[in-house]
Amino acid sequence: MAESIRMLSKNTVKFIKSLHQKKFRNQEQKFFVEGEKSVLEVLNSDFKLELLVATDSFFEKHNSIISQSAAQVILVTQNQLETLGQYQSNDSALAVVQMKSNSPYDFPQGHFVVGLDDVRDPGNLGTIIRIADWYGIKNLVFSEQTADFYNPKVIQSSMGSFTRVSFFYADLKDVFSKWNVPVYGAFLDGENVHQMTKIKHGVILMGNESNGISRELENMVTNKVTIPGFGQAESLNVAIATAIICDNFKRLTSV
Amino acid sequence: MAESIRMLSKNTVKFIKSLHQKKFRNQEQKFFVEGEKSVLEVLNSDFKLELLVATDSFFEKHNSIISQSAAQVILVTQNQLETLGQYQSNDSALAVVQMKSNSPYDFPQGHFVVGLDDVRDPGNLGTIIRIADWYGIKNLVFSEQTADFYNPKVIQSSMGSFTRVSFFYADLKDVFSKWNVPVYGAFLDGENVHQMTKIKHGVILMGNESNGISRELENMVTNKVTIPGFGQAESLNVAIATAIICDNFKRLTSV
Repeated sequence: MAESIRMLSKNTVKFIKSLHQKKFRNQEQKFFVEGEKSVLEVLNSDFKLELLVATDSFFEKHNSIISQSAAQVILVTQNQLETLGQYQSNDSALAVVQMKSNSPYDFPQGHFVVGLDDVRDPGNLGTIIRIADWYGIKNLVFSEQTADFYNPKVIQSSMGSFTRVSFFYADLKDVFSKWNVPVYGAFLDGENVHQMTKIKHGVILMGNESNGISRELENMVTNKVTIPGFGQAESLNVAIATAIICDNFKRLTSV
Repeated sequence: MAESIRMLSKNTVKFIKSLHQKKFRNQEQKFFVEGEKSVLEVLNSDFKLELLVATDSFFEKHNSIISQSAAQVILVTQNQLETLGQYQSNDSALAVVQMKSNSPYDFPQGHFVVGLDDVRDPGNLGTIIRIADWYGIKNLVFSEQTADFYNPKVIQSSMGSFTRVSFFYADLKDVFSKWNVPVYGAFLDGENVHQMTKIKHGVILMGNESNGISRELENMVTNKVTIPGFGQAESLNVAIATAIICDNFKRLTSV
């Protein structure tokens, strides 16, 4: 029950602002989520809320779900709320949430996993999480240098999908060796994804925004995949490319 | 021949800065392009350059192509360059370029046109231009409320593809009535794009980020198209959705 409604103290302001930085998020093992949609998604998820900072109107509108959470509640004005997070405009809420542990899962047989090799842009990572969720891909795995899942921009651009995926950070070489499943890597000189036929499951591996998949990981790729181009653009954004490969793989496996 | 190399005057600084605003771009019928890749693309295109503001190193490296342009050249330091445009870092060049006239084209029989109904975000518009170029779709058409093609963020996110497409702004209802070709509109309750078979040409119509395709234009849609979802994400970003539909349509028409 969320019973203890308290005031916003200077220490709490300082604490929430510290969570904008990865260093403090890791130290505290906490992150924040802001905006009506994302806060409601996290309230409905298996994430554990520590603190909910909300406007009166958000609190009243969503009282029943808030009361089921163990979070402390702090009521604030819209102005106060906007000084805490990164949104220019936020008239609803901000939640401080516990991180999950970085636990490797076993390969989900018969399904796909999206693997990211050093995707650095938080907006790209968030968008890729949203795409995976759209295609029912529940598992992702990230190289150590991939953007931080708990970065506020990742949370924002995932549009709530961050609550519905499993992930861990690891040395991808080790992970792929252990899993021993097909690794489909996006390259410019692979098999045309429109002409592929037999696929069952495996990893969809996407590379860094500038450098693509690293040499080291290229050796672990069992199937190089290419999105056919018909014009003169040199490349596609990594999130766009992820979406197109996921779409083709889902088409091939859902018939 | 680019012969007249001159100094950067206060008036030129003021003029270039004014082009950040749509009002002044329209008044002057000029826009700017920045960064090595995009400036080289525009130098290689049929756009007419008015002015090239460049660092010594950019000028020396690309002297042969610059000398084929009629643009006036101003040599500046990297610091000066960075005060003019929107890039935080720019060690190459910025070009002031003439807009093209807003001239409607006839429907390109046997091909696709990407139509945008009030896509407001410049990053989305630029990304969609890049996607169209990737798929060899050379024609786009925009509702009057769609983001400005010449917005610096559109130019940036199109990654040079803005030089290779034709477009105009118009009342889409009038355009589609005149063209009288299939209009494929992206909706959540249309035909599964994975199951479509016979398509030849037409308009791929995408709607506004929040509201989708307007009621008024919905009546002009001959075929509602849906990207199948397999998870719980409610929607896809409009640029992602455009990419997936273009990819499926190219797959269906290239066999």
